[in-house]
Parts: sequence; C-alpha cells; structure tokens
Amino acid sequence: MEFSSKLLERAVNEMSQLPGIGKRTALRLVLHMLRQPKEQTLALSESLHAMRNDVKFCKSCNNISDVEICEICSSANRNEEIICVVEDIRDVMAIESTSSFKGLYHVLGGKISPMDGIGPHDLTIDSLVEKVKKGVIKELIFALSSTMEGDTTNFYIYKQIQDYNVVTSTIARGISVGDELEYADEITLGRSIVNRIPFESALKL
Amino acid sequence: MEFSSKLLERAVNEMSQLPGIGKRTALRLVLHMLRQPKEQTLALSESLHAMRNDVKFCKSCNNISDVEICEICSSANRNEEIICVVEDIRDVMAIESTSSFKGLYHVLGGKISPMDGIGPHDLTIDSLVEKVKKGVIKELIFALSSTMEGDTTNFYIYKQIQDYNVVTSTIARGISVGDELEYADEITLGRSIVNRIPFESALKL
Repeated sequence: MEFSSKLLERAVNEMSQLPGIGKRTALRLVLHMLRQPKEQTLALSESLHAMRNDVKFCKSCNNISDVEICEICSSANRNEEIICVVEDIRDVMAIESTSSFKGLYHVLGGKISPMDGIGPHDLTIDSLVEKVKKGVIKELIFALSSTMEGDTTNFYIYKQIQDYNVVTSTIARGISVGDELEYADEITLGRSIVNRIPFESALKL
Repeated sequence: MEFSSKLLERAVNEMSQLPGIGKRTALRLVLHMLRQPKEQTLALSESLHAMRNDVKFCKSCNNISDVEICEICSSANRNEEIICVVEDIRDVMAIESTSSFKGLYHVLGGKISPMDGIGPHDLTIDSLVEKVKKGVIKELIFALSSTMEGDTTNFYIYKQIQDYNVVTSTIARGISVGDELEYADEITLGRSIVNRIPFESALKL
C-alpha cells in the first residue's frame, strides 16, 4: 500500500500489529478516526498510554488492578480460605459476573504449554505454592480450561501442594443449563453421566 | 462487564468505539497489549495522537497529506488537465497502485446520500466546480462507486459544470479481467455488451 502521508502510514502500521487486524482493517479504522471529532482519538490515545503505563498487577492474586492489592483481595467480605485458580483476568471477570463465588482468586497468567514455550516458571505457580505453605488456605478450586494444557497445569500444581493440608477441586464439567442432550458432544455427555449428582442436591440449586 | 481496574475499563471503552470492535474484542486487544512490551502500546498511542493532531488535507485535492499541497498535486510529472473524482483517499490509493493514471485527483469525502443525511454541501463539490471554472481542466473522470448514491453524485456534479468547456467520462464497467462469463451478474454483463469496444483497441491494452 502506498500512503500519501507518513503520519497515516505509521498509525496504520501500528494498528495492524494488533491480533486480527490487518492493514486494510487498520486503514479503515484510522480513516474512521479522521472522520470523528478529534477529541475521540485523543481520548483513545491517552487511555491506552495511561493503561499501559500505570496499570498494576495485584501483589497477592496477580489480577489487574489500579492499586497494589486488588479490591477482591482486600475485601473483608471474601473468604480467604478458598482460592479459585484461573488462567487470566477474563476468567476472573466471568466468574465474578456469576456472583456464585465468595473466595479469592489466583491468576496464573496462562497455562503450561511446552508447544508455545510456556513452562511452569513463566506462570505464577511458585507464589501460589508459597501461599498454600502458609496454611491459611483450606481449598483450591482449579478453574482452568478443559484442555490438555489445562489438565497438565492442574496436575502440576496438584503435585506441588499434595503434601500440604489443602483440599483440591475442579469446577464441574457437564451439559450446559438449557442445552438439548442430542447436541452435546459424547465426551461431555459421558462425563456428566459418570459424575452424576444426587437429585436432591440438584433440587437445591 | 465488571472491571477490576478503571484504567483497563477506560481503554476498553475507548477501543470499543471503533467500528466493528465490540467490548469483548476490545478487551482481547487491550489484554494483548498488556502482554506485549510496553514500547509497542506507547508507540501505537503516540502514532494515533500525532496522526489525529497533525495530519493535513491537501488544499487542492483534499487528499490526506503531511504538507499543505500533497505530493501528487505538486508533482511536475502529473497532467493537471485531467482530474479523477473519487469518494475517499482509499480510492486514490487503489488507483495509484495501478500506475495507469497520470492526472490529478479530487477527493469528495463521500457521496450524496440523503438517507445518511449527506448533502452536496457536506462534500467538496464546490471547490471542484471552482477549479473547473478556472478553465485549466479539460477532462473530469468520475470514479465513484457504481451505486445509486454514486450515480446521483456524478449527475449532480455534471449539472454544475455542464456549461463549462470540460469533457466528462466515467470509468468503464464490465467483466473483470480473468473472470468467467457465467459467474458475472446480468447487469454488468448486459452493460459490457452495450458498451463493447473495438477489438483493435482492446488488443493495444
């Protein structure tokens, strides 16, 4: 592509570094910005700058935060004896929006994936193990994706902490609420039969 | 969506103002930025700021430029007697990449579209008519989209300049080079038969 303006070219090149945004999409977005009021683009630019410069990661759970210890970790209403282990902050947001969990989180920052060159020491597993060693935590809930990498990560953490007095659990896998059985995949359906729950306890939900 | 950081929330909100980018995509993009080196996001932020603040529109043709008169308009190698009328700067880039046109451009900034509230005075038609009045221009080539709005705009400009001594033409519509006839739509195929060209002149291309 030949650009008539170096400023335009640089903006398009920078935008097209983002995942899923090619040169043509970047050009469309940048031309859209030029048609909008100037303040809008300046606000976008400023917000990205501030976010990248000033955002912090909670020293306790590694969640994104504006302060040293995030709101969840510093809240008096949360049960610090239960820790939910998740991959990234999107999972924290997803679980928080259910309002079903009142414990704390631990954000790993990914999962063990040798194919992508991510080993245990690229994640925050060590600080999780340190937390467990202190003896306050009674239960760890593994809420990682149900993939080989997720299962590997779960198992790695489990081996590290099995000598300490802590209960481990994983979130339930099964048929989605509202789903028809005939459209469920066999593995999920098979597991949901093996891991069936007493009807009385399902009634309480 | 509940965000654990106001900085993150603001960046996501600003990103999701862009066309085709919703909240979830914006969050994915912003989290990607947090995983990349800081310099990359700061460069993106800076380039958008500079582009929106400093980019100019050529005083002659309305094309995007870093200087008052764009490179095309100020070039000694271009024929200032032929003006190609286009909708926006993407069309200039598309035609420039063919290397088939050695005249100048006039960027309208859109096309007349009463449904979208765009009238003739929202476009740069007046300055085009002024240019024609000066008498230097010998030919206007209409290269707008082949839609009702494009045709309306062509006709509006034509009515404004018909009393002046200037030839008007539109780019040829027809079957794409390399296309099979059976997959062409009827209107295009029909027009390409009505507007057939002598075989000898096709041989020269």
